Amino acid sequence: MRRKVYVEGVPFTEVVLSDGNEPVRLYDTSGPGSDPEVGLPPLRAPWRSGRTQLASARAGVVTPEMAFVAIREGVEPELVRAEIAAGRAVLPANRNHPESEPMVIGSRFLVKVNANIGTSAVTSSVAEEVDKMTWATRWGADTVMDLSTGPRIHETREAIIRNAPVPIGTVPIYQALEKVNGDPLQLTWELFRDTVLEQAEQGVDYMTVHAGVLLPYVPLTAERVTGIVSRGGSIMAAWCLARHEENFLYTNFDELCRIFAEYDITFSLGDGLRPGSIADANDEAQFAELRTLGELTHRAWEHDVQVMVEGPGHVPMHKIKENVDLQVELCGGAPFYTLGPLTTDVAPAYDHITSAIGAAMIGMFGTAMLCYVTPKEHLGLPNRDDVKAGMIAYKIAAHAADLAKGHPGAQEWDDALSKARFEFRWEDQFELALDPETARAYHDETLPAAPAKTAHFCSMCGPKFCSMRISHEIRQRGMQEKSAEFVESGGRVYLPLTS
Amino acid sequence: MRRKVYVEGVPFTEVVLSDGNEPVRLYDTSGPGSDPEVGLPPLRAPWRSGRTQLASARAGVVTPEMAFVAIREGVEPELVRAEIAAGRAVLPANRNHPESEPMVIGSRFLVKVNANIGTSAVTSSVAEEVDKMTWATRWGADTVMDLSTGPRIHETREAIIRNAPVPIGTVPIYQALEKVNGDPLQLTWELFRDTVLEQAEQGVDYMTVHAGVLLPYVPLTAERVTGIVSRGGSIMAAWCLARHEENFLYTNFDELCRIFAEYDITFSLGDGLRPGSIADANDEAQFAELRTLGELTHRAWEHDVQVMVEGPGHVPMHKIKENVDLQVELCGGAPFYTLGPLTTDVAPAYDHITSAIGAAMIGMFGTAMLCYVTPKEHLGLPNRDDVKAGMIAYKIAAHAADLAKGHPGAQEWDDALSKARFEFRWEDQFELALDPETARAYHDETLPAAPAKTAHFCSMCGPKFCSMRISHEIRQRGMQEKSAEFVESGGRVYLPLTS
Ligand code: SF4
Ligand code: SF4
Repeated sequence: MRRKVYVEGVPFTEVVLSDGNEPVRLYDTSGPGSDPEVGLPPLRAPWRSGRTQLASARAGVVTPEMAFVAIREGVEPELVRAEIAAGRAVLPANRNHPESEPMVIGSRFLVKVNANIGTSAVTSSVAEEVDKMTWATRWGADTVMDLSTGPRIHETREAIIRNAPVPIGTVPIYQALEKVNGDPLQLTWELFRDTVLEQAEQGVDYMTVHAGVLLPYVPLTAERVTGIVSRGGSIMAAWCLARHEENFLYTNFDELCRIFAEYDITFSLGDGLRPGSIADANDEAQFAELRTLGELTHRAWEHDVQVMVEGPGHVPMHKIKENVDLQVELCGGAPFYTLGPLTTDVAPAYDHITSAIGAAMIGMFGTAMLCYVTPKEHLGLPNRDDVKAGMIAYKIAAHAADLAKGHPGAQEWDDALSKARFEFRWEDQFELALDPETARAYHDETLPAAPAKTAHFCSMCGPKFCSMRISHEIRQRGMQEKSAEFVESGGRVYLPLTS
Repeated sequence: MRRKVYVEGVPFTEVVLSDGNEPVRLYDTSGPGSDPEVGLPPLRAPWRSGRTQLASARAGVVTPEMAFVAIREGVEPELVRAEIAAGRAVLPANRNHPESEPMVIGSRFLVKVNANIGTSAVTSSVAEEVDKMTWATRWGADTVMDLSTGPRIHETREAIIRNAPVPIGTVPIYQALEKVNGDPLQLTWELFRDTVLEQAEQGVDYMTVHAGVLLPYVPLTAERVTGIVSRGGSIMAAWCLARHEENFLYTNFDELCRIFAEYDITFSLGDGLRPGSIADANDEAQFAELRTLGELTHRAWEHDVQVMVEGPGHVPMHKIKENVDLQVELCGGAPFYTLGPLTTDVAPAYDHITSAIGAAMIGMFGTAMLCYVTPKEHLGLPNRDDVKAGMIAYKIAAHAADLAKGHPGAQEWDDALSKARFEFRWEDQFELALDPETARAYHDETLPAAPAKTAHFCSMCGPKFCSMRISHEIRQRGMQEKSAEFVESGGRVYLPLTS
């Protein structure tokens, strides 16, 4: 059985086990639940301070948000403060989004997963988008990016933020482009700034800004197999090239920092020149931009503004580690936030899998947050099922990375599930699963009857060949033998089957 | 458009491109197709020789099978011969299975995928199993293991082998156990040997033999979270422990080698003590058995018998490489053949994904063949859909590994697909995809009309925000500019957008 519990106000999912052992506590992103018409309660309202989380951390202050995430992560509050102070972690929390439950992104903490939602021009109601956001957090999304475009963009975002128990990210250039009817050449710094202010007031917690797409880098993409595949990157590149001017996000970066500091918005420095194919991975365009992102990271830090840095994309496995090493070096350890990467281009319709491979690896190497990829990547707008498929694949990748990093406590979950499996506590196994319903449904397909949920086999090997059943008999025999021999010889036991 | 072609008798799938460029040739495991009642033509019948592939290779002979796989892999025949001679590759080809198209398994060649089929006791007809085998090769299975148990086991296997264009593997101890009604203690060497001979006569190309599960290793599993999870391993462990005798597969290994040599059957040395959970990975039980498998590898080689060595199982990412390094060292470079590994235990119903991560990584490190895992792992018998889901996840893992190893030619496939993607040749993109139907269906979901298949956007970003469309405009502008400036200045061009 699963139930929601609060530890000093911090939410967890508890899985109550049928063997009477301690319940297993899982990280819980689903929020307190709400009536979408009303929105969530403003949890963080009483904690408001005049400083950013980074400024507080630097001043040696453990904010209530840091204390919250320390409980959530099972670590000391001082570790949270120190990592934020050093820029190695961020706690995205716009003052105007008090509804969100604090969370931390950094390589010393659990690997996080972001889910992208939002419509392209055609369809979807406000209610549908709020539902997708809730659905994503139900499956473990640690942050959600609202990438909506189209007519009701402000209203949609408002409804999402008021109902979001997790930090919300956006790419303000999308809304700016809508304001000039889709013509990049009409974009101006002033228009962009006003858009940022509009979103900042609503409570957006982090914003992707493609300030590293510099005019001289654009030609570096000319020989690429897939050119520029970031929407924001292509928009800024088109602007720079058409006007022969430097990127206005770069030239006005300090003013942007002052706005971000006012609301405590976290930068997500966009990788506008990320590779869109295996052929383009780790090329000069990509790494030139990364060097600029390193420069901008340090500039943001001067303004007490928190920073994450976005990463690729499409990268074959043997080139993944170089991305992390270079990012850590150039960006002073600021959290890396990567899209996959996809480890091959040949499987459209399965890019949640091609990229879960890369995501798990890049997470192991130190990436702090993984942006999910759904099965629809490259093919169309993801629906609800795609959101779930993407989330599950990425929660797997993130947890596999936590295990590989030896994150304290991570393996307890695996051990609890494997123990339930070995003891044929089927219901415990299902409840501990990342997706209990599907696990149960698969078992039901061949063995739906209630007694099968305590049976010492399943239909995979069948009763005769169930290795775990035989394994138990071996242990029993070993123990019988041990006591028999013990009685007989009074001495040394041949097979020390139990210690 | 896809079509099957033969190059000097060797099958390939050709994807014909709409841009008029050279068709892309893909490795093809689907076989010539057949009427299941008649079986496939005996392709290799004229090539029969008195020697094993290993003996021939050692004698410096390039067999017709080796010549075949050299074309299939795009390498020199001499490389194939040398790798087989050194034991670093196997070419599983029972003299009595002339229907199969030769293929090679070794770390210098393309990473292969095995699909397990076969029923547990309850159900399924012979025709259904033949269909599953054909279905698996349709999705790229390089070998298929028939793990059938139940009453019509001989007949089922006969139908599968006569229709299989790929090598067929079995675990003979399963049939042996059926012969003694499921009681491991009744097993004898003679019964096992006769079962092997029966299957050898039918044409089984490789057999899993759990000869490394030695009596003294069994107690090493006593403290494990999940004990012994290999069916064959648990059966042999039960036998050894009950009788206080050494494993009869180990004590009769030389006689077994003589039989294998007679038919040119390849050993797949089973990892009966592989870990079944993250907690049990890389433990003493596992590695003690691996040392024995190393010893047996060298003994089989003395008999001119080819050998693969099976590997885990459940292993967290940071412990994967140690498995490969140790196996290579102990087993003299004999091909490693691993089940996954699953990189976390927490996602039953998605173990094709938890294990595709591990499979891709272990493939990159040098594993020669990956045994697929389906979504039903741990929960029930896989059906046709599960077979496909497992195959797709594993073809992704195998190809990602080929890319990471820099396998010559591997990236051409990715490049062709990405080029089609960037040029909005949607039909080419679908046809080049690992699963064309699903890729097309996903695109159809939002944009079913024919013009959408040449449109310069899809529903993911929509027409205004399609980064690839904008990217083309950038290139065009760059080129216009370049020629304009060239005309004006007669000299140096500001933006070298094309080289
Ligand atoms: S039958 Fe096989 S898969 Fe099912 S519980 Fe037993 S060992 Fe596990
Ligand atoms: S709209 Fe987006 S996903 Fe679709 S073709 Fe264009 S860049 Fe690719």
